[in-house]
Amino acid sequence: MRQHKLALCAPDFSEWICQQTERSIHKYHMFSLDEKILIAVSGGKDSLVLWDVLNRLGYQADGLYINLGIDAGIAYSENSQTFAAEFAQQRNLKLITVSVAENYGQTLPEVARHTVRGRVKPCSICGLTKRYLMNKIANDGEYAVLATGHNLDDEVAVLFNNTVNWLAGYLARQAPVLEASAGGFCRKVKPFCRLQERETAAYAIINNIEYMYDECPFSDGATSIYHKQILNQLEADRPGFKQSFYISFLKAKQDGLFNPDLKSTHPPMEYCERCGQPTAVPGTCSFCRTWTSDESSD
Amino acid sequence: MRQHKLALCAPDFSEWICQQTERSIHKYHMFSLDEKILIAVSGGKDSLVLWDVLNRLGYQADGLYINLGIDAGIAYSENSQTFAAEFAQQRNLKLITVSVAENYGQTLPEVARHTVRGRVKPCSICGLTKRYLMNKIANDGEYAVLATGHNLDDEVAVLFNNTVNWLAGYLARQAPVLEASAGGFCRKVKPFCRLQERETAAYAIINNIEYMYDECPFSDGATSIYHKQILNQLEADRPGFKQSFYISFLKAKQDGLFNPDLKSTHPPMEYCERCGQPTAVPGTCSFCRTWTSDESSD
Repeated sequence: MRQHKLALCAPDFSEWICQQTERSIHKYHMFSLDEKILIAVSGGKDSLVLWDVLNRLGYQADGLYINLGIDAGIAYSENSQTFAAEFAQQRNLKLITVSVAENYGQTLPEVARHTVRGRVKPCSICGLTKRYLMNKIANDGEYAVLATGHNLDDEVAVLFNNTVNWLAGYLARQAPVLEASAGGFCRKVKPFCRLQERETAAYAIINNIEYMYDECPFSDGATSIYHKQILNQLEADRPGFKQSFYISFLKAKQDGLFNPDLKSTHPPMEYCERCGQPTAVPGTCSFCRTWTSDESSD
Repeated sequence: MRQHKLALCAPDFSEWICQQTERSIHKYHMFSLDEKILIAVSGGKDSLVLWDVLNRLGYQADGLYINLGIDAGIAYSENSQTFAAEFAQQRNLKLITVSVAENYGQTLPEVARHTVRGRVKPCSICGLTKRYLMNKIANDGEYAVLATGHNLDDEVAVLFNNTVNWLAGYLARQAPVLEASAGGFCRKVKPFCRLQERETAAYAIINNIEYMYDECPFSDGATSIYHKQILNQLEADRPGFKQSFYISFLKAKQDGLFNPDLKSTHPPMEYCERCGQPTAVPGTCSFCRTWTSDESSD
């Protein structure tokens, strides 16, 4: 790890990853050993490695796989689910699976084709769908916290996008922990926020974790991927750049950089007339408007 | 200009540059036709083009050239001064010149060698020296405002550095106009803050403005130059990136992104015990501590 001026053997590296994760969990007050954790598992390396690390550290973490029915010629969702299911089975861990086609009658690509904002790319529909289901299932299962595998590269790419566009609300909200709000949004945490993608990849290889190599076929050409290339170049030229950018952001925010009037938590709570889940706006929530067939031409 | 989807002939382009400059002057309330302006002239393209444009627009602008005695095998300061002097003479404009060697007995490279922070590179000493002399001469000459040739590329490079390091005070202060403070810091403005470097370069060529091509020999390897390369790549891949980054920053700031408690103006004023000029800290100011021989081992 050039940014840490550190070289380790395989077992020490795995141990180091666990220590770093534990450090982030404590530093940002993510969760304790007696809290039930739900991990959003995609079948990719980050979420499976997170599950492995939390399990090794003695935390009670179940997995949640959301099958969005993306095929794109590579059976993307089916294969991803298989990696998640096999990981869980080998370690005797509990994996909750939800299929949108089974529960809501359509796949993500199908529903996206009928919406204005999903016509070109289903990514924004995918985001709202996953956020809705993750939150609902975390609440239904009485989990204390929802954990995602976002790593430093992901966080820095989001921060870069929020920064170059100066998105005030997102800047105020971006953090390793998003606290639960009284109305029904659960606590969300990112225990890998200080680990680089190549570090989680190395952990997966060392520990023989089989995962879905392919990126989502819809992510091709995404701005976030372009920004990641730029950020990789900055990291290659200035080792430690990503960590410094992210950590100095968190520190400046903690030191009061932003206007305290900015909404750093969720907006005032409303409840969906249809499903009863929390939502930011009155009436029917975005999820129901998107996935309920009689309004899917929205 | 790809970012504006605009292509112009040479006379229209020069007219467009003047209009854009006038627009920034009005938009940010920089100065009026009856105010005396001092332009910090380096002999490079941006400051000479700025002088030309302000002159064309009917503003009363004198120039100030500070000769820092940088030779570096290319007679950098002497040649730069010649470009500034010839420009002024051809147009019958008033150029004030100050030589640090004549006034303070040493050149910048000489004084930098005797200071801790200038031992490797004299850039920070150069910055404080120019800021001090520009402010002193603007005040002594009763100029209403000091104008510099900083263009969009310069501003975006500074903003990028302030952002990736999350320098709260600098972020709060960066703006096209820095208002005068009661204690003696003059108003500072950047009329070219929305023009790209290649646009000022094109204006110089079209209008036969001869300028110093060489960059300061000490700027080699500077982080700002590295950041400019990254930003040029972003601009090439996403035309309009620089303008969008800068303008959205100014807008977010105006909309109250930052904590109002952050110092967006100069710190409380003190006066140097030696020269009487305003300074941020009590006692002798940085300029006197640097340039006064009996303390130059600071």
